[in-house]
Amino acid sequence: MDAAHEGGTLAEHGEFAVIEAITAAMGEVRRPGADVLVGPGDDAAVLRVRTGHVVVSSDLLVEDRHFRKAWTTAYDLGRRAAAQNLADIAAMGGTATWLTVGLAAPADTPLAWVRDLARGLAEEAALVGADVVGGDLTESGEIVIAVTVLGSCAQSPVLRDGARPGDVVALAGRQGWAAAGLAVLSRGFRSPRTVVEAHRRPAPPYDQGPVAAQAGATAMIDVSDGLLADLGHLARDSGVAIDVDPGVFEVPEPLHAVGAALGVDPLGFVLTGGEDHGLVACFESAADVPQGWLRIGTVGEGEGVTVAGETRSEPGGWTHFSS
Amino acid sequence: MDAAHEGGTLAEHGEFAVIEAITAAMGEVRRPGADVLVGPGDDAAVLRVRTGHVVVSSDLLVEDRHFRKAWTTAYDLGRRAAAQNLADIAAMGGTATWLTVGLAAPADTPLAWVRDLARGLAEEAALVGADVVGGDLTESGEIVIAVTVLGSCAQSPVLRDGARPGDVVALAGRQGWAAAGLAVLSRGFRSPRTVVEAHRRPAPPYDQGPVAAQAGATAMIDVSDGLLADLGHLARDSGVAIDVDPGVFEVPEPLHAVGAALGVDPLGFVLTGGEDHGLVACFESAADVPQGWLRIGTVGEGEGVTVAGETRSEPGGWTHFSS
Repeated sequence: MDAAHEGGTLAEHGEFAVIEAITAAMGEVRRPGADVLVGPGDDAAVLRVRTGHVVVSSDLLVEDRHFRKAWTTAYDLGRRAAAQNLADIAAMGGTATWLTVGLAAPADTPLAWVRDLARGLAEEAALVGADVVGGDLTESGEIVIAVTVLGSCAQSPVLRDGARPGDVVALAGRQGWAAAGLAVLSRGFRSPRTVVEAHRRPAPPYDQGPVAAQAGATAMIDVSDGLLADLGHLARDSGVAIDVDPGVFEVPEPLHAVGAALGVDPLGFVLTGGEDHGLVACFESAADVPQGWLRIGTVGEGEGVTVAGETRSEPGGWTHFSS
Repeated sequence: MDAAHEGGTLAEHGEFAVIEAITAAMGEVRRPGADVLVGPGDDAAVLRVRTGHVVVSSDLLVEDRHFRKAWTTAYDLGRRAAAQNLADIAAMGGTATWLTVGLAAPADTPLAWVRDLARGLAEEAALVGADVVGGDLTESGEIVIAVTVLGSCAQSPVLRDGARPGDVVALAGRQGWAAAGLAVLSRGFRSPRTVVEAHRRPAPPYDQGPVAAQAGATAMIDVSDGLLADLGHLARDSGVAIDVDPGVFEVPEPLHAVGAALGVDPLGFVLTGGEDHGLVACFESAADVPQGWLRIGTVGEGEGVTVAGETRSEPGGWTHFSS
């Protein structure tokens, strides 16, 4: 790094200087844990596994599909890219320990943008004590961020297929905020600030994943596509029906404000909004539901997801390649 | 999958049908090993680790940077995407066990293309007994393939920083073939077939990674950027100089043919070509060099890489964001 340290594009700095800057930015956030036997810089990272297993998940974020540079900062995007992956581990009842990050970006991307992204990734990972242990950097036409996260479970992982009729369904974390934020941004507004921030930087209830597993959760998933859509995945995999009681949701004030401004029912954000990465889990009885979780429905015989016994007709969430 | 099974685009089939087709294609290649406790389809995969550690590496392949659809089949691209990642584990002295694959692709990509890619990935992984245990699928403007590979080492991993003056340098696997193939394709030719095939589908000497580790290799790297370039990485990390003896290489006939046709010295393909994903390793003595490895040079005091004592002036290999 020379005098151009703070400025310049990836092309101007070149691959190795960029990687050095990324590694330095991440190193300022957190010193690698003792189980990182070999960190970034070799052909692969080497990680000590004390639990006898690893839990692994991978996700991609694509520019103008999952994010718009005009709507977020690189730092917040890094937070979000990490969060959506860390939430997948929480949804197994586990805790994330390591991440690898692949970044494809145009040559004219500012180095500062990439360094902020790296800092956001490292800071979100640090929330759960996880290290970024490797990655890849390459040129592309549009920005693609590929995150793989590794973790472990203190007890048996909680899958999507264990819900049984009679179970209660409960939710941890915010729900509908990110969707309300996206609705606001899509129409060219920047407020209410709280929902815009929620879209830019989800705050998954990471610690509630292991808490739910400890409490005997029979099935769990994180809400990425939408509450009803993700409950649909869980119901399908478990071979059950789920009914959601819409009366339990206290729709928060900012969502009311967005609903009023846009002329839509704010409950829609709660029921169909994704990307808050809250957790929904099923428990055998109401007594098992941990503190801080909201009971939102029940599991029954059959299939599909209903709201107060009715099938909703509006789109149930995000899918790729849908017209 | 309906009557459109064999045809149609990702958009026409939709996300879930595409994932089903990918999973089915991979399932035909290999039944998951017993250590895959939870495979694709949940929030994360769960993998039994018997060795107390995992070795992890991630790579991206970007359309029109790392591959051109016109120059390869989806099947071969899958083979190559897996191979370059599996080679990273071999270069640690390890064996790959699991992969996750993220695919970003335009909505008009044919389903058959994606299924062939998945089959190629799974078949290359099966060569070393590795399973594809998860991934992600999303829409993008250009194709990006993000592979993360996990593995383990039967003994201490072989890093890049252990070479010492007096060591001998040895090579396993083909070298220069992929570069010759790329040179041919870049000029609009399709032959010699052997080098074009070598570019499309590298054949890393996976089993020689653990063999070298067992034989006491002091440092190792796979040749992805170019022989001299990757030896440069190894020399820098080890704090040593490396001299390559160009006289040891028997330049194979197809490389001679390409050199003659293009008016270049075919030894250039051997010395600076990348992407064959052979392995170069250092050993304390010639007696340690395993059978099948070619002694190509020596480690000395100092820094940098020379060929017969001379610094070469031509570009030393592939870097991203270079002008």
